[in-house]
Amino acid sequence: MTSASPPYTDTGLLAPGWGLSGAASETSDHAYLRALLDAEAALTRAQAALGLAPAGAAAAVTEAAVPERFDIRDLAARTPAGGNPVIPLVADLTRAVGEEYGPYVHRGATSQDIMDTATMLVAARTLGLVLADLGRTERALAGLAAGHRETVMPGRTLTQHAVPTTFGLKAAGWRSLVLDALDRLTGVRDSLPAQLGGAAGTLAAFRAYGAEDPTALTGAYAREAGLAAPELPWHTLRTPIADLAGCLAFTAGAVGKLAVDVLTLSRTEIGEVSEGSGGGSSAMPHKANPVRATLLLAAARRAPQLAATLYGCVAAEDERPAGAWHAEWEPLRDLLRLVGGAAAHAAELAEGLRVHPAAMRRNLDITRGLIVSERLSAALSPVLGRARAKELLTGLARRAHAEDRSLRELLAEQEELKDIDLDDLCAPAHYTGFAGTLTDLALERR
Amino acid sequence: MTSASPPYTDTGLLAPGWGLSGAASETSDHAYLRALLDAEAALTRAQAALGLAPAGAAAAVTEAAVPERFDIRDLAARTPAGGNPVIPLVADLTRAVGEEYGPYVHRGATSQDIMDTATMLVAARTLGLVLADLGRTERALAGLAAGHRETVMPGRTLTQHAVPTTFGLKAAGWRSLVLDALDRLTGVRDSLPAQLGGAAGTLAAFRAYGAEDPTALTGAYAREAGLAAPELPWHTLRTPIADLAGCLAFTAGAVGKLAVDVLTLSRTEIGEVSEGSGGGSSAMPHKANPVRATLLLAAARRAPQLAATLYGCVAAEDERPAGAWHAEWEPLRDLLRLVGGAAAHAAELAEGLRVHPAAMRRNLDITRGLIVSERLSAALSPVLGRARAKELLTGLARRAHAEDRSLRELLAEQEELKDIDLDDLCAPAHYTGFAGTLTDLALERR
Amino acid sequence: MTSASPPYTDTGLLAPGWGLSGAASETSDHAYLRALLDAEAALTRAQAALGLAPAGAAAAVTEAAVPERFDIRDLAARTPAGGNPVIPLVADLTRAVGEEYGPYVHRGATSQDIMDTATMLVAARTLGLVLADLGRTERALAGLAAGHRETVMPGRTLTQHAVPTTFGLKAAGWRSLVLDALDRLTGVRDSLPAQLGGAAGTLAAFRAYGAEDPTALTGAYAREAGLAAPELPWHTLRTPIADLAGCLAFTAGAVGKLAVDVLTLSRTEIGEVSEGSGGGSSAMPHKANPVRATLLLAAARRAPQLAATLYGCVAAEDERPAGAWHAEWEPLRDLLRLVGGAAAHAAELAEGLRVHPAAMRRNLDITRGLIVSERLSAALSPVLGRARAKELLTGLARRAHAEDRSLRELLAEQEELKDIDLDDLCAPAHYTGFAGTLTDLALERR
Amino acid sequence: MTSASPPYTDTGLLAPGWGLSGAASETSDHAYLRALLDAEAALTRAQAALGLAPAGAAAAVTEAAVPERFDIRDLAARTPAGGNPVIPLVADLTRAVGEEYGPYVHRGATSQDIMDTATMLVAARTLGLVLADLGRTERALAGLAAGHRETVMPGRTLTQHAVPTTFGLKAAGWRSLVLDALDRLTGVRDSLPAQLGGAAGTLAAFRAYGAEDPTALTGAYAREAGLAAPELPWHTLRTPIADLAGCLAFTAGAVGKLAVDVLTLSRTEIGEVSEGSGGGSSAMPHKANPVRATLLLAAARRAPQLAATLYGCVAAEDERPAGAWHAEWEPLRDLLRLVGGAAAHAAELAEGLRVHPAAMRRNLDITRGLIVSERLSAALSPVLGRARAKELLTGLARRAHAEDRSLRELLAEQEELKDIDLDDLCAPAHYTGFAGTLTDLALERR
Repeated sequence: MTSASPPYTDTGLLAPGWGLSGAASETSDHAYLRALLDAEAALTRAQAALGLAPAGAAAAVTEAAVPERFDIRDLAARTPAGGNPVIPLVADLTRAVGEEYGPYVHRGATSQDIMDTATMLVAARTLGLVLADLGRTERALAGLAAGHRETVMPGRTLTQHAVPTTFGLKAAGWRSLVLDALDRLTGVRDSLPAQLGGAAGTLAAFRAYGAEDPTALTGAYAREAGLAAPELPWHTLRTPIADLAGCLAFTAGAVGKLAVDVLTLSRTEIGEVSEGSGGGSSAMPHKANPVRATLLLAAARRAPQLAATLYGCVAAEDERPAGAWHAEWEPLRDLLRLVGGAAAHAAELAEGLRVHPAAMRRNLDITRGLIVSERLSAALSPVLGRARAKELLTGLARRAHAEDRSLRELLAEQEELKDIDLDDLCAPAHYTGFAGTLTDLALERR
Repeated sequence: MTSASPPYTDTGLLAPGWGLSGAASETSDHAYLRALLDAEAALTRAQAALGLAPAGAAAAVTEAAVPERFDIRDLAARTPAGGNPVIPLVADLTRAVGEEYGPYVHRGATSQDIMDTATMLVAARTLGLVLADLGRTERALAGLAAGHRETVMPGRTLTQHAVPTTFGLKAAGWRSLVLDALDRLTGVRDSLPAQLGGAAGTLAAFRAYGAEDPTALTGAYAREAGLAAPELPWHTLRTPIADLAGCLAFTAGAVGKLAVDVLTLSRTEIGEVSEGSGGGSSAMPHKANPVRATLLLAAARRAPQLAATLYGCVAAEDERPAGAWHAEWEPLRDLLRLVGGAAAHAAELAEGLRVHPAAMRRNLDITRGLIVSERLSAALSPVLGRARAKELLTGLARRAHAEDRSLRELLAEQEELKDIDLDDLCAPAHYTGFAGTLTDLALERR
Repeated sequence: MTSASPPYTDTGLLAPGWGLSGAASETSDHAYLRALLDAEAALTRAQAALGLAPAGAAAAVTEAAVPERFDIRDLAARTPAGGNPVIPLVADLTRAVGEEYGPYVHRGATSQDIMDTATMLVAARTLGLVLADLGRTERALAGLAAGHRETVMPGRTLTQHAVPTTFGLKAAGWRSLVLDALDRLTGVRDSLPAQLGGAAGTLAAFRAYGAEDPTALTGAYAREAGLAAPELPWHTLRTPIADLAGCLAFTAGAVGKLAVDVLTLSRTEIGEVSEGSGGGSSAMPHKANPVRATLLLAAARRAPQLAATLYGCVAAEDERPAGAWHAEWEPLRDLLRLVGGAAAHAAELAEGLRVHPAAMRRNLDITRGLIVSERLSAALSPVLGRARAKELLTGLARRAHAEDRSLRELLAEQEELKDIDLDDLCAPAHYTGFAGTLTDLALERR
Repeated sequence: MTSASPPYTDTGLLAPGWGLSGAASETSDHAYLRALLDAEAALTRAQAALGLAPAGAAAAVTEAAVPERFDIRDLAARTPAGGNPVIPLVADLTRAVGEEYGPYVHRGATSQDIMDTATMLVAARTLGLVLADLGRTERALAGLAAGHRETVMPGRTLTQHAVPTTFGLKAAGWRSLVLDALDRLTGVRDSLPAQLGGAAGTLAAFRAYGAEDPTALTGAYAREAGLAAPELPWHTLRTPIADLAGCLAFTAGAVGKLAVDVLTLSRTEIGEVSEGSGGGSSAMPHKANPVRATLLLAAARRAPQLAATLYGCVAAEDERPAGAWHAEWEPLRDLLRLVGGAAAHAAELAEGLRVHPAAMRRNLDITRGLIVSERLSAALSPVLGRARAKELLTGLARRAHAEDRSLRELLAEQEELKDIDLDDLCAPAHYTGFAGTLTDLALERR
């Protein structure tokens, strides 16, 4: 690296999970710079709207506040001195605006006003993409649920076959989680507030510059920025950050549930689903790896701890904390990126998922009929008595395994059951309970 | 420890933060046992209500389902074999109910139905206490905010005095966070669902036993249990757990903010507040430690990582996961305990907090007037010109420090300022911006 | 709960993972009380050994410092006032020792000296059990590795069959992780230090009471307590806690690796291993769940976040922090318990694991020979040329899948390969690379 | 953003904590690309050294494996398809090497062999910088400890003055933590292993290509790469990652302890230390914020949760996990960056720290002499009897506070103490215990 090189540049080499997504663009240094400038311009426009600054200042700042006019690398290099990027940016923006209106740049504000507002803008913009991708995911899963309402497959608990279920119910469950995520993300997105407090949250400098009504000032600023108006300055009242942490961690888990199921069902021995386009392997050209599900699960493994860091920053001392604020920036960006990438991969995964009902049917027979033993127990107890039914089934289960014969076959040999319709009783497809009804009910949501 | 001793008993020796709280009782092994039995009884009653079980069974199970009739230690000892406490409990409850109605115990259900429902009951009951204690906290903070609307104190950012603020605004901010917590906790508490799915979430066994309408069945069960009816069986759709994780982690942070501020303001050198009853020291009898705030902060340090574990369990494979479910139990209980204890300590802390306005006034002078330099800069610029004002203030600030004189005194020596009302300009109490208005606005909430 | 009831008692109902283990006993409230008393007695004995206290005091305190003479519930109830259990314990112990020697109880010490020393004693005692159980685990895995040196099974990557491996190598890998854990745990266990600093870490009170050499004092105390002598008082130099956090989190992961593999290989469709005694199900009597592996994985899901809380407490302010110390106690105990229980379950799991080579052989054929495609590619390239070999294999792989025929069979039809020994080339058992040698090498360790 | 723009570029705008550090360069996408190429070249050279590849291949691959010849953005764009960057890189490198020796690129290896080896190279290189910066930090702290051996200051516990200590002992404690970090980091750095296993960890392809001795092969590869030779392929035996996680999280905490103390001691009311060059404020030009300490603490808040994610990935299923491996990459890089930046800031902070003994002396008097009450209690008990001494001191402490007089003055009025040397007894500087001796002992280390 030559001496003229920047200390570092990242552009996605380690980020197959999100590096190509729209969320990557919306959370880049460039996107943050844009949002910081948007916040500064909104502030001057709001002051102009209230008569606290000349209209010319609003126009001049808005015109100057264009990312392309600023040098990100240079700003980044001047960031450590004061500990945040707003300080050097204000200097450059003031210069860019010029002598006449320069004094109206950042007037009355503190760095955190701009940084927090910009962060909310970045979050709102990224969540827009996430919501769209989750919408696609939800619709694709609805299609799978409806289309596979009758597709029977083994229900699995603690890795073992339990009783039959349907792929439709499974897909409906995935969709239900995605809808839960959509609800929570939408609620948080719509509430993201602008930040305005001045040096210590009293808006004192704004008052010194002539503001008369804090509600009017904050409202105008929030309107110009395109965000909600805050109840109070929230420099150390971090509810919006915590709300983001929670809904993003949940979303990562929600699509992570889809992923772990796809990974399990894709196993070579199970083969009940496969990704539309599996990833290759550098060593084994025949392999079709469930790459999207893998990347989704990787995101689900990371998001909770990133959220924990953000929740840990809620207990922020004083009117601006030394560390708890600074520790939020990168984890929140990471969460937005991970979830943004995950939502995009989830949409592709759901839309392209290939389902293999034949494999499901084959797998239903692996336990030689024991997958319906719960039903047999319920059905035979009234006929044979509870104790006898249990004894019979336990014995036959052992024999089925030892002799490699089906439970159906062994039951047919029992004289005492000769009047029972074993074909019905032993059919996995006849023991899916209310899977269909539940699928229908779940699909009515939204 | 004699051979007859249990492997362990905990009763609060390491838990000053929550061991004595109501939440400790509501989350004890005894409370879980009670909730498990409540869930079993609700299930039988629901089936009786739908005609799926005799009324006598409902009565018999309800009568038998009393914690005092069961041996917790013995149940605990039999838990590892199947991996959860429901399996041995069902055996004991069936025996307790007797031969006639025993078969109606747990009929159609799976362990997770009972365990999850019981967990929701424990959560709902504990949240009831948390909400009450946060209500007390909120009211006490409202009183502090109103009472100290005009109490001026230094605003602090990155550990340094910034500009003045008021203790009223500070207390209003603490209250605002507590109200945010109340909103989120209430929303989650009211939505906590009963769990009913049967072996793999299809309700198949219930259908085998005669149920015709899953909505009716689940609805009756939820009603009997006193919980919300779920949209779908949620064995591996863990939204309720994630919602609890989020609101509890946030609440710990919200009262943690109160705690870090109390700790800072209690420092020997600052002395602006003190706890109603400080804790003693084993070595120094004169010390009055801010013990409640210390315990609150300890809770705030732990809660985020407990929540992370719960968020990490959302990506749960299959119809019941091998580990992701089991990993939820203790962290969720720990979170309920920590937050339950923290809410109780927070109420006591807020109600007993002693505020020392004299110390605040004293501290406002520590910077020799520099705490109002922002205001001076705004006020003198129009008079002297921006550049000259800055130059003058920078120079006087340096002299104030070097000569140990106040900025007010040095400004008074400046000929060019002889017409300025320095008494007003330099009074910290005259530079609190909109602190009063913001306090009023915040107190209008609720 | 009647008014006479304690606020809570836990005794394992929610803790199948560790509630019955030796670690549960070694970390109970009773065990902590014992360790606290051991620390107090060691302190008086150390002072007597240096002539700073009469020999009678050492004897009297040692005799009185017996857990059975103290009321844990009462101590627990008095803990919140000062924020730790040492304060009430010193009062009770002083009374128990009597008027003559009572003044020598806790003389010169601060609560944290006793609490930290007790914590180290609890950790050392629990680690003793963990090391023993991991020793059992390691030996059982060594047996499996040696016994299955030639047992071929599918190697799996990203859920898909890759190339063959052996169960021996797999078991050797599990053992290697367990040995890594043993190394790290042993190192930490042997370094756990006693704590002695007095009120602010200067040992000032000891000097006031006549101590002349801090090294002699601390050394005597550490010797009496059975711990290492610290370099400095470590009230806020928390290396020992961080070291424990790291080795415990790693150990949970190490046995967690064993668990996830057992869970995967136990899947109904895979069936290559099973637990010695699977757990039952409340709904499906035939099921044999991998319960131990499930509980191990639950521990592995929780341990990292508990360790994170402890690492987060390293940045502890002042001479004793307000919160960072108190936040350590329960997470460290939880980690010791989780890992103690996990080690015990791991030993049982490893000793009882049933291996099914027939299932492994069957599974090796699922890909119709594609599991050796890497080898075929290497072997045919020199014969056919790299490009032709690739083209041929890709085409035949597609046909094998489409026509449900084995790759071996399709290759045999190729004229150009008539001189190749396909039986050798296509045998999965002939393509295990250095699995055997690597297993031998790994077994040489220790 | 125009359509030709990359999805994102980061270059430090949000990273004042590490963006300008050497660690940023050593962990950039460019640095990873370099390390990946180093790993590929080492592999071909190792094979050539064992006669498994022609010498010309080693030379050709080494010559081609230069980062500047590759397009990182293009590689990044092709990464999601297979889920890791090695797959497209091997394609490009093979092309760059040319037809003759191209087949020797990546021969026998799997993506993870290269990725893990590259990660270890990046870690080793970054740790080199960290060790150097911590060395600077340690030396600066040693200077502070020696220089302030006699500088008395208040010892503080739970935010309250306890007894006096010295700044020398405080600095010696900070240094002790840094030395602990150095020990742990050095141990881990020296053990970082190369990775070589082939498709499923059996080295089978290498054997197919003629390798005879896995130890020789792995040893040659590790030597060429400049890393330790592994005991076994560690694709899913993640001890090296866990070891890195542990030592990095600890290091962040160790310098975080320095940071929290500097932040506390820098408070406007305390003023006992200040950073060499405090950061400015955008709103208040007079403020000198402790920016480095703030950024250090932000790192300490984040590192534990990043480590938790890595510990959570130890339980990795199969021969390569679907997610647990991919989830490691970015958190490990983040940890290296955070700790790299923190070490650099810590060195600057320690070297530039300004200490204000006069403020310390002033603060020692704030409690009006109560800071030596522990000593008075020890000294007066033999004279007055324990009970009378306690009664007297408690009463005078109350009066000292109420009458705003010093304890020294009140004691002087007591007839019963007329023969006591109160000047000595009440001097905080005479009650620093063994602070000096402990400082000397601590400085002997290394």
